[in-house]
Amino acid sequence: MPGKVKRSAEASLIARHFRPIAKHPGAFKLTDDAAAIAPPPGSDLVMTTDGVIAGVHVFADDPPDLIARKALRMNLSDLAAKGARPLGFLLALSLPAATKQSWIAAFARGLGQDSKHYGCPLLGGDTDHTPGPAAVSIAAFGVVPHGKMVRRSTAKIGDAVVVTGTIGDAALGLKLRCNSRLAKRWRLGKAEAAELLRRYRLPEPRNALARGVLRYASAAIDISDGLAGDLDKLCRGSKVAIEVDAAQVPLSKAARAALAAQPELMETVLTGGDDYEIALTVAPGKLAAFCRAAKAAGVPITQIGKIRAGEGARFFQNGHALKFARPAYSHF
Amino acid sequence: MPGKVKRSAEASLIARHFRPIAKHPGAFKLTDDAAAIAPPPGSDLVMTTDGVIAGVHVFADDPPDLIARKALRMNLSDLAAKGARPLGFLLALSLPAATKQSWIAAFARGLGQDSKHYGCPLLGGDTDHTPGPAAVSIAAFGVVPHGKMVRRSTAKIGDAVVVTGTIGDAALGLKLRCNSRLAKRWRLGKAEAAELLRRYRLPEPRNALARGVLRYASAAIDISDGLAGDLDKLCRGSKVAIEVDAAQVPLSKAARAALAAQPELMETVLTGGDDYEIALTVAPGKLAAFCRAAKAAGVPITQIGKIRAGEGARFFQNGHALKFARPAYSHF
Repeated sequence: MPGKVKRSAEASLIARHFRPIAKHPGAFKLTDDAAAIAPPPGSDLVMTTDGVIAGVHVFADDPPDLIARKALRMNLSDLAAKGARPLGFLLALSLPAATKQSWIAAFARGLGQDSKHYGCPLLGGDTDHTPGPAAVSIAAFGVVPHGKMVRRSTAKIGDAVVVTGTIGDAALGLKLRCNSRLAKRWRLGKAEAAELLRRYRLPEPRNALARGVLRYASAAIDISDGLAGDLDKLCRGSKVAIEVDAAQVPLSKAARAALAAQPELMETVLTGGDDYEIALTVAPGKLAAFCRAAKAAGVPITQIGKIRAGEGARFFQNGHALKFARPAYSHF
Repeated sequence: MPGKVKRSAEASLIARHFRPIAKHPGAFKLTDDAAAIAPPPGSDLVMTTDGVIAGVHVFADDPPDLIARKALRMNLSDLAAKGARPLGFLLALSLPAATKQSWIAAFARGLGQDSKHYGCPLLGGDTDHTPGPAAVSIAAFGVVPHGKMVRRSTAKIGDAVVVTGTIGDAALGLKLRCNSRLAKRWRLGKAEAAELLRRYRLPEPRNALARGVLRYASAAIDISDGLAGDLDKLCRGSKVAIEVDAAQVPLSKAARAALAAQPELMETVLTGGDDYEIALTVAPGKLAAFCRAAKAAGVPITQIGKIRAGEGARFFQNGHALKFARPAYSHF
């Protein structure tokens, strides 16, 4: 028909791959300029943004569904550490012109899967072509009761310092991903090597524990740039100190094997990043209740120290202070 | 001090350039994993994301303050078209390693300036190095009374179709930016050429009219991908039609001069994009009140047609249907 406007390729891409996973009514089937959602009365909106760039945070040839899931999970981990329940997310996706439809389909499938699993609906987005590498930026929103977001800066002297899960697996997994011969050097079984790789490629954010963090934590931080650096941020923000004996840091069997074979990997474990565990502080009187909440949520926790007077985080091993060449993952 | 963790370069960059412009208390001085903000009771949260990539949406050598302001204004324009009052935004910034501190400083300055001007505070962000071009992704939030976001899909037969400002200036400005000799061909004065360029580089979102849109519009869309394509989206979403006489489309003096010199530019004007004006529909009984609201807001408006039965937008010139080679700006 003359003068009629055809639907753009961008609109077709969104309709084909992303509309099927954007089922929340406030997403308006991705057909509007914006999404709308009613936050629960009395709640604060908690907002965070994080993303991955192919060749920087993920490998360009990583499976696209895992790239999508990692990008979403990085944001979910921030919400979990703040005690927030996910409300939804926006996706900004920049893709090279040569990206295949099958790549986009797998990406959207992975995103839809985690979006459903974590109860965090896709609400809107933006897609562009880029002359650079594929890049995924996500802005995620959650809610907490008004004034109750768990901060970094509110740890108190005497509080127990607790971490979820095990530390360093993802950083070791990244080393393995770069050099598969390390598995032999570290005397890892196949399953152990696979587990380290999996922890690098697909973090497991601790959203199951978000309610426990909200109720019992005096302060919390998402461990994304390495335990050493992130604990230090929590301490400096709170104007307190912690001394951590490296022997107290929870390690997986695979990480213990790697450290036994190559003890200097302790720096990688403590500063390597990509853990997506939570470090939190709990007042002594609430510790037992928090432990019960963690058990009920199925999230393993380990106390690694106590908050004391001073400023910053220091790590010790066999009584000696550890000095890190590269204290935390930084993009600059 | 041995074992002490140093502040990362990323944290320093944020502290130096972005903390000074993140004054909202819910941004926690950009020192936490997330921001927290209390939405006004009874309101819906309106969310949108849009961004620019150097070499795609902006030129790599554009002034960094204008790049920042354009990226924010693209999002503000979406909020304005939905009738929403800005609440704040998150910034995801990817920069080449060679980016100078002075570039980042100017970028942050421009962002801070517009953030203040439009009452849209920076709430949080994410900064990364990229091997690709500089990329800015913004997620912006606004509020409307519950259930009142102005949709694309709610235009009614008989409604007046109105656009704000003038159409096509930015698309012509882009052509001028690529080939400065066109100014002579189009017989533009210096001020006219400068005005077209300015409209490309620094859109003027119509947030001053957001309340008027909220009160009086039956449907609305932000004109970012060209009037033809965006009106078509509004019509298809609403399952209605519009026939627009190109002579009714409001043009600046500079655009009229360019069209007089080169009439085939009408396609550029109608489909070129980057207008960041609003196309909206208004029930006949509300039109007078809307016109008063627009006048009070200082936003020029022009009626370009009426909604009728059918599906989609068609454009006519001198009684002939216009056929567009490239109906709307699309990234795919």
